[in-house]
Amino acid sequence: MSSQAELDQLCINTLRFLAVDAVQKARSGHPGAPMGAAPMAYVLWDRFLKHNPADPQWPDRDRFVLSAGHASMLLYALLHLTGYDLSLEDIQRFRQWESRTPGHPEYGPTPGVEVTTGPLGQGFSNAVGMALAERWLARRYNRPGFEILNHTTYALVSDGDLQEGVASEAASLAGTLGLGKLIALYDDNGVQIEGSTDLAFREDVARRFEAYGWGVVGPVDGLDLEGIEKAIAEARSDTRRPSLIICRTIIGYGSPQQGTAKVHGEPLGEANAQAARDVLGWPREPLFHVPEKVKAHMRGAMERGHAAQREWEAQFSRYQSSHPPEAAAFQRELAGELPPDWDAELGNLFAPGSKPMATRVSSGMVLNALARRVENLFGGSADLAPSTKTLLSGHGDFDAEHPEGRNLHFGVREHAMGAIAGGMALHGGVIPYTATFLTFSDYMRPPMRLAAMMGIRVVYVFTHDSIGLGEDGPTHQPIEQLMGLRSVPGLTVIRPADALETAEAWRAALLNARGPTALIFTRQDVPMLDRTVCAPAEGLHRGAYMLWQSAQGMPDVILIGTGSEVSVALEAGRKLAGEGVNVRVVSMPSWELFDGQPAEYRETVLPGSVEARVAVEAGIRLGWEHYIGLKGRVVGMDGFGASAPAEVVFQESGITVDAVLEAARSLLT
Amino acid sequence: MSSQAELDQLCINTLRFLAVDAVQKARSGHPGAPMGAAPMAYVLWDRFLKHNPADPQWPDRDRFVLSAGHASMLLYALLHLTGYDLSLEDIQRFRQWESRTPGHPEYGPTPGVEVTTGPLGQGFSNAVGMALAERWLARRYNRPGFEILNHTTYALVSDGDLQEGVASEAASLAGTLGLGKLIALYDDNGVQIEGSTDLAFREDVARRFEAYGWGVVGPVDGLDLEGIEKAIAEARSDTRRPSLIICRTIIGYGSPQQGTAKVHGEPLGEANAQAARDVLGWPREPLFHVPEKVKAHMRGAMERGHAAQREWEAQFSRYQSSHPPEAAAFQRELAGELPPDWDAELGNLFAPGSKPMATRVSSGMVLNALARRVENLFGGSADLAPSTKTLLSGHGDFDAEHPEGRNLHFGVREHAMGAIAGGMALHGGVIPYTATFLTFSDYMRPPMRLAAMMGIRVVYVFTHDSIGLGEDGPTHQPIEQLMGLRSVPGLTVIRPADALETAEAWRAALLNARGPTALIFTRQDVPMLDRTVCAPAEGLHRGAYMLWQSAQGMPDVILIGTGSEVSVALEAGRKLAGEGVNVRVVSMPSWELFDGQPAEYRETVLPGSVEARVAVEAGIRLGWEHYIGLKGRVVGMDGFGASAPAEVVFQESGITVDAVLEAARSLLT
Repeated sequence: MSSQAELDQLCINTLRFLAVDAVQKARSGHPGAPMGAAPMAYVLWDRFLKHNPADPQWPDRDRFVLSAGHASMLLYALLHLTGYDLSLEDIQRFRQWESRTPGHPEYGPTPGVEVTTGPLGQGFSNAVGMALAERWLARRYNRPGFEILNHTTYALVSDGDLQEGVASEAASLAGTLGLGKLIALYDDNGVQIEGSTDLAFREDVARRFEAYGWGVVGPVDGLDLEGIEKAIAEARSDTRRPSLIICRTIIGYGSPQQGTAKVHGEPLGEANAQAARDVLGWPREPLFHVPEKVKAHMRGAMERGHAAQREWEAQFSRYQSSHPPEAAAFQRELAGELPPDWDAELGNLFAPGSKPMATRVSSGMVLNALARRVENLFGGSADLAPSTKTLLSGHGDFDAEHPEGRNLHFGVREHAMGAIAGGMALHGGVIPYTATFLTFSDYMRPPMRLAAMMGIRVVYVFTHDSIGLGEDGPTHQPIEQLMGLRSVPGLTVIRPADALETAEAWRAALLNARGPTALIFTRQDVPMLDRTVCAPAEGLHRGAYMLWQSAQGMPDVILIGTGSEVSVALEAGRKLAGEGVNVRVVSMPSWELFDGQPAEYRETVLPGSVEARVAVEAGIRLGWEHYIGLKGRVVGMDGFGASAPAEVVFQESGITVDAVLEAARSLLT
Repeated sequence: MSSQAELDQLCINTLRFLAVDAVQKARSGHPGAPMGAAPMAYVLWDRFLKHNPADPQWPDRDRFVLSAGHASMLLYALLHLTGYDLSLEDIQRFRQWESRTPGHPEYGPTPGVEVTTGPLGQGFSNAVGMALAERWLARRYNRPGFEILNHTTYALVSDGDLQEGVASEAASLAGTLGLGKLIALYDDNGVQIEGSTDLAFREDVARRFEAYGWGVVGPVDGLDLEGIEKAIAEARSDTRRPSLIICRTIIGYGSPQQGTAKVHGEPLGEANAQAARDVLGWPREPLFHVPEKVKAHMRGAMERGHAAQREWEAQFSRYQSSHPPEAAAFQRELAGELPPDWDAELGNLFAPGSKPMATRVSSGMVLNALARRVENLFGGSADLAPSTKTLLSGHGDFDAEHPEGRNLHFGVREHAMGAIAGGMALHGGVIPYTATFLTFSDYMRPPMRLAAMMGIRVVYVFTHDSIGLGEDGPTHQPIEQLMGLRSVPGLTVIRPADALETAEAWRAALLNARGPTALIFTRQDVPMLDRTVCAPAEGLHRGAYMLWQSAQGMPDVILIGTGSEVSVALEAGRKLAGEGVNVRVVSMPSWELFDGQPAEYRETVLPGSVEARVAVEAGIRLGWEHYIGLKGRVVGMDGFGASAPAEVVFQESGITVDAVLEAARSLLT
């Protein structure tokens, strides 16, 4: 064996046994995938990956996504060895409280981790989003002589990733869009938790990906470093199509139980770990061993990365001189900042006294007004743009031939849409938005949850937000979705009442740079609230505000509405006022924003002394006790909707002014 | 044109214009798909479909699933014309309140509708479940000389269906399992809502399905009846593999706007409808025209169906004579009934005073005890069986070669698992169960919602139900999922506290024949509650029950727990009792069951006069005000969990006895 080959094996075994030892010490974790995939990961990181461990934020770094998040120790070992700010002590605290080496990779605590992974299929789809953002931004900013952005997105994926539908959706779209700088390395080990992949997964993966329009390389032997290197080089040379490299590996390589599900998800155990050491020629002592030669070689990444970034910075500095506005915009967008006067057009969009308008329509106007100034607002719909009103007019479609287009067409793929948008946000430089009907938010909960966990800015537009969509019926009428979204920690849900609140909702969404926002809009027309009588729509930013009160002083009853039901509450309020009741009507577009207000403010809106409270919302009743307690009343739904014209469904479901009146009166007597 | 050919065209145009007229009258709906797909649907129904319009429940009928549910009028027209109990008046009430012709097909109100469809990808995946159930039951009940079950499952699917990941998952599994009597007819019209499918869907669908192991027939011209007929015959002859028939159609065929997205989702409009009539040679008057010749021909289905069913019944009658126990079991299982003494083994599974045990482990024991007697309990896991403890021991794996196996291996495909299980339940004859981690319930919300809407019996096992799963970290720790499931109308969620409640939970799930049940189990051990001191576990069936109280009379404070937190509440209760407080501890495994109890019972458990209430649950706080109001306290979570040993995460998240004590004391002062 040449000395280079020996060094390579030494490095690979270091990766393997850091994983084995960390899992053993933590008494939990996944040793099998790191042991099997270490060679492919090593070749990638050693010979291709463009990155600078000293600056994990360098905009033009290659992105590496460990979609098979359970192989986290492989990633931590790579980060540690190549010189990221992740110490051997960090690795020894694998899976411990507040360590930088949690069970699955988490975006945030660990330098060099590009994305939180673990739920299968998500990372792969995030990677599609990253490659998409790279392509769009490269087209937007590169100029003759300047390659400001030119990087590759790599994803390491498992059998499980490729079984998940979200990955199928994302792969099909990536093929359609010709994302040539996306390379997925498939750790094809033939084993999953329940046994052989033959139990559930006999498909021809290569053929499937070819059908999607991908280039497929391999299968290559996962122990053959040269073969892997050639495969990656081949994939990189195909810039028209995304590439899948099929790498045949042996899970838990070296362990007596290699090639079985037993090495997947628990420590090898002392005896098997020792046996693996013996088989692979690794010393029994010490644990967490990193040979000096390995350290020296792997740290070479720092020097290479430093040089590469310095070269890029020199280029960017010339770019700043020759293209100052582009350079400034690039930096601002990468920093996640909005341009000056980004919301200047919003103030005049809606004239007072305008006629009723669906909030999806006002949303479309607001989105277009924003997009004119926020040039990196970039997104689309899961084949519902004419209904969700999310098309950016005059901006063209993004496709394989037109990477400058700003309208994304996700196809009927809500789940991948969510995950791709997450990947776009993680790449940086763009503000992604998605759109579909609220009921189909059910298809995209996993990526929304991950976006909330990561605290990234994605705007999810959900229209057709209640039984108010009418004839399409119960399969399309969301009931429990609003409450379901509100229950996701870190996700801000906003359901505006009219056009002016819609403008504020979009404003809030863009200002929320530290987390995702779900904007909820009606299909049906809603009245424009008369702001000469009602409080201004800016109250939206506090989540809930006193919209109107019939008299001074403490109200007798408080009516709380959201979205299209605010006008129902208001009409009921006016009637009650006519009966001499002091009524307050509260518009409550966002629970999260309201609950984030100081207690004093919340008390001014919902004084503790007023227990007569009625909430009205065309959604599930459950949960509203959060504001109305056990003594209030909810005018809401308990079951599913029905197919009929909207006004009939509202009437039959009891979401009416009369029902609010009845509820309020019952509390007043 | 031969007179047969003329008759065929007359029938096809009748289907088309019933759809056009119904959509026009309803002023909403989807005319395009029925107009384009009418020929393929006609050929299938006229020349292949085995069904008896007079008895939509005939067990050996072919199943027809309109996965593209928006084409509902096509199905209603077929049902009406072939003689189902669906009148022309019903069709004229398309999309109206309480009509039998809702916007999307609904299982229940409309005879002949096998499944509620509309959300794309679901119907296709349901069809996979139906074909799977057929194969398993056929193997179970057919005997030499007796083909009690031998029917085909057909699905009519759209571009959108095939873009959805759930369909990809289901297709891959169907290929792996070699479901030869499954035939999908792909209405390949090249158009979706946002325009050409090229925008988002350039993949080679045929190649993809071949990669899954399907036989692919076509493309055939969607206007060529003979071609379609040959294609279906070819697909039927391939009994080793599922088949996809690619049928090139023209959306909105006959309309001036045919072949464009404009004819997809709204009425054609008077002018275009008239133009279509003229083009296709259809009379301008009357609307809802059904030529006598068409009526006579299509009604032939009744006679054929009657004869076919009579023949089957004669066969079944002989089967009853020669195989009485099988015949009896078949009838009982088809009727959805449980065998006598089905739960007889549950009583002795867990000895009093057993040591602590994870409820996933006790669930595994209960499931196996049930499966020994309930022989049509049939399911599996999304590649987590060793963790979810859902393997039926000694029953073998269901695969292409072993259709008698009772353990399904869904692969890492939670979404399809949910939809396939729904299809199995809809087929009838089996009681399906699924299993994965609770956090991955997010992947399968759409099919769970549809199961709840349809009121079908599916048991969803969800283990690893809280931060108690420990080191795998926040991506795997469910927080909002419990509340999210509780918010789905018609879904019963049960989170038992110990082994005995686990047995009752399974019992409740099987007894719930009119809806799905989600069973929520721990990864970590929980103590076996001492039932000599605590109330019996049968209280579970009322949703919540007084588990223990420290003294007689009205309690000073009520502590409410679910699942693993019941023992936390109990320990806190004992400590408080030591301080002289009269404490009641309530075990509340199921909100839905409790809310379904009479008010008197609920009052005995949670007396209105006791406002000092503390709920403890290792999940999102939001929602618990439903029981504790604004004056109670919730010991729960507001954010995501973390990767660390379970006991540390509980401690750091504040789900502790001390926190319950603190909360209770704060209410008592």
